[in-house]
Amino acid sequence: MLIVKKFGGSSVANRERIFNVARRCIEDYKAGNDVVVVLSAMGDTTDELIEMAHSINPHPPKREMDMLLAVGEQMSVAYMGMAMDSLGIPAISLNAFQVKMRTNSSYGSAKLKRIDTERIRNELEMRKIVIITGFQGINKMEDLTTLGRGGSDTTAVALAAALHADACEIYTDVDGVYTADPRIVPNARKLPEISYSEMLEMASLGAKVLHNRSVELAKKYGVQLVVRSSLNTNEGTVVKEAARMERMIVSGVASDKNVARISVMGVENEPGVAFKVFNSLAKKNINVDIILQSVGREGTKDIAFTVAKDDLDAAIEVIKEDMKIFTAKGYEVETGVAKVSIVGAGMTTHPGVAAKMFGALSAGGINIKMISTSEIRITVVVDENEADRAVRLIHDAFDLAD
Amino acid sequence: MLIVKKFGGSSVANRERIFNVARRCIEDYKAGNDVVVVLSAMGDTTDELIEMAHSINPHPPKREMDMLLAVGEQMSVAYMGMAMDSLGIPAISLNAFQVKMRTNSSYGSAKLKRIDTERIRNELEMRKIVIITGFQGINKMEDLTTLGRGGSDTTAVALAAALHADACEIYTDVDGVYTADPRIVPNARKLPEISYSEMLEMASLGAKVLHNRSVELAKKYGVQLVVRSSLNTNEGTVVKEAARMERMIVSGVASDKNVARISVMGVENEPGVAFKVFNSLAKKNINVDIILQSVGREGTKDIAFTVAKDDLDAAIEVIKEDMKIFTAKGYEVETGVAKVSIVGAGMTTHPGVAAKMFGALSAGGINIKMISTSEIRITVVVDENEADRAVRLIHDAFDLAD
Repeated sequence: MLIVKKFGGSSVANRERIFNVARRCIEDYKAGNDVVVVLSAMGDTTDELIEMAHSINPHPPKREMDMLLAVGEQMSVAYMGMAMDSLGIPAISLNAFQVKMRTNSSYGSAKLKRIDTERIRNELEMRKIVIITGFQGINKMEDLTTLGRGGSDTTAVALAAALHADACEIYTDVDGVYTADPRIVPNARKLPEISYSEMLEMASLGAKVLHNRSVELAKKYGVQLVVRSSLNTNEGTVVKEAARMERMIVSGVASDKNVARISVMGVENEPGVAFKVFNSLAKKNINVDIILQSVGREGTKDIAFTVAKDDLDAAIEVIKEDMKIFTAKGYEVETGVAKVSIVGAGMTTHPGVAAKMFGALSAGGINIKMISTSEIRITVVVDENEADRAVRLIHDAFDLAD
Repeated sequence: MLIVKKFGGSSVANRERIFNVARRCIEDYKAGNDVVVVLSAMGDTTDELIEMAHSINPHPPKREMDMLLAVGEQMSVAYMGMAMDSLGIPAISLNAFQVKMRTNSSYGSAKLKRIDTERIRNELEMRKIVIITGFQGINKMEDLTTLGRGGSDTTAVALAAALHADACEIYTDVDGVYTADPRIVPNARKLPEISYSEMLEMASLGAKVLHNRSVELAKKYGVQLVVRSSLNTNEGTVVKEAARMERMIVSGVASDKNVARISVMGVENEPGVAFKVFNSLAKKNINVDIILQSVGREGTKDIAFTVAKDDLDAAIEVIKEDMKIFTAKGYEVETGVAKVSIVGAGMTTHPGVAAKMFGALSAGGINIKMISTSEIRITVVVDENEADRAVRLIHDAFDLAD
């Protein structure tokens, strides 16, 4: 079997953890498998590099930033190679140049294009464990690029696809995907499996186990993922095609407090106004989430939407600037809100799911500010300080506990 | 003019020094020159990487060690690129992969084979300062290699040769080559120029301004070097072909306290015995310096030689092991010795130089234990605690002071 195993920065943060990872990989190797390991930069390495860079140049050129950050994973893989050698196992570390991890040229958020697997296959054939730098690539100029958030997960999935791996294991500090955040719902249950689509909805809703890009890539290439903990040997959660599993009506409840609501008031009731608002925001790379349009006074309308709190300042700037283009009379901002969602691939075929969710909130006296739905998700916006209670009420209503 | 400028690790050890180097390079750039900068790893970076590596594996695989150490220079060049950008100057950092700095596969002490200058020339043509990682290369497997001690000097010289640079400036923490170590001889004089051969003799005798490999390479390709300080703007010392300069009878006095003497006693007076001794040492990569063979008792002979103190333990081991092969009766070790040498390209054509040197030592009551000469060098071994005084006496005798 060919297994791709990815470990994040906290899993290789120090000598002990490096050996812990090495031993886990060696177990699979000794069982006769081909093992490819993808690593992120150790613990705080990336933060330290960024800090020094910013002390030199508050706005460092992105190309130089990627040149700098790429050293983080190179250190991790070299140390891992040394650790495996000291445990008597042949291993070799490879960086983005050596595996020709081709990307486009979007420094800091590059997209993987293709991987040359020849070197990896040669090393595996020599019965070596192959340790590969996550997060980084090279563009057509042979300049280093980095993949941005969740980059190492994406590297692992891309490698698993390119190598036709039999398994792709993503190790994190939780041991799988739960029906809800166990810190909010203590009796939340670990899901044995979840579909790509559900995982995507969960991730975008604050259950930050896997980055969306890696899940999308896994879905595209049919790479079956296992999310599991690097700290224990518990069975993880399998992320795979929904067709192969029994569709859960509701797989989980997720919440996201990184939310702000902006309302643009009194825009003229004409076609194309909403387009103008969201086009202006899109141009500045601001992701808009839930959108609500309502009838305002005197034939005008109000457009409300949510953005991530990190994007709020930028969004406000856009709104202020283009106020006239929008024909808007004013705007309001609300930051004390949160999204609470249920996700389930079987939702479409089971009516009454939304009613049950809203009923649970109503019984708990929680006011719903906005509603948004997709085929496999229902999201409501509530007061931020009621979000955790909302999650627990819904979790109970759908009987998701252990 | 195309100028290659090399700065060592202490010159880029922190933010302030990085900017200091950036400004010096920009001066040349603004004067209309093409500027290529070669950098070592910052300050203690390499030591820190080695320490962590050894904590993981006391004998890390050399290939993985080079993979690890190469990050040091990559950090330096990226930071330098950011510093130049913040000063408004277009710059680009390039690593060993990007300039195809080809070496053989001797990890840890690789030899440069060729450099692809196309990328560098393209970037220079776009009027960028090009910042290149010293010390590192890639072999035919595309694995990273490092050049060993003095590696970044060698990189700079090789680049200057490949680019047909008009100047190659090696910045250090001293402002040139002196007639003697100014810490020992306060009125030592800075030499405006010195020949490659003299520089080689000086370097091997403890005047560690330039590493021999870089001087040898410069000599081979006729690259004129300038050694100068990164801390001030004083004129440095030019290292060039002797033919072009007036030959100094004696250019300088150097001493080396990293010396131990080993005597192998009572070996049979047969052909080939000396060969056996030095062959055994050579096999273990132990450099033997001064050799003295004398007649011993009862038709046997004694062979004495000096080695670097660092090699002493290894040398003793060899001698012990092969005692019988050498037909030796015993051995003696003396560590409290030092080499003192005079170097000068004009020495060969001026008789009486040795006599003057020995006379100065004799007048000072300093006993000479061994003597060795080359065409442009005379070396004596004296008591270690008399070495500094010997240097001063000789320096005076040849009137080398300011």
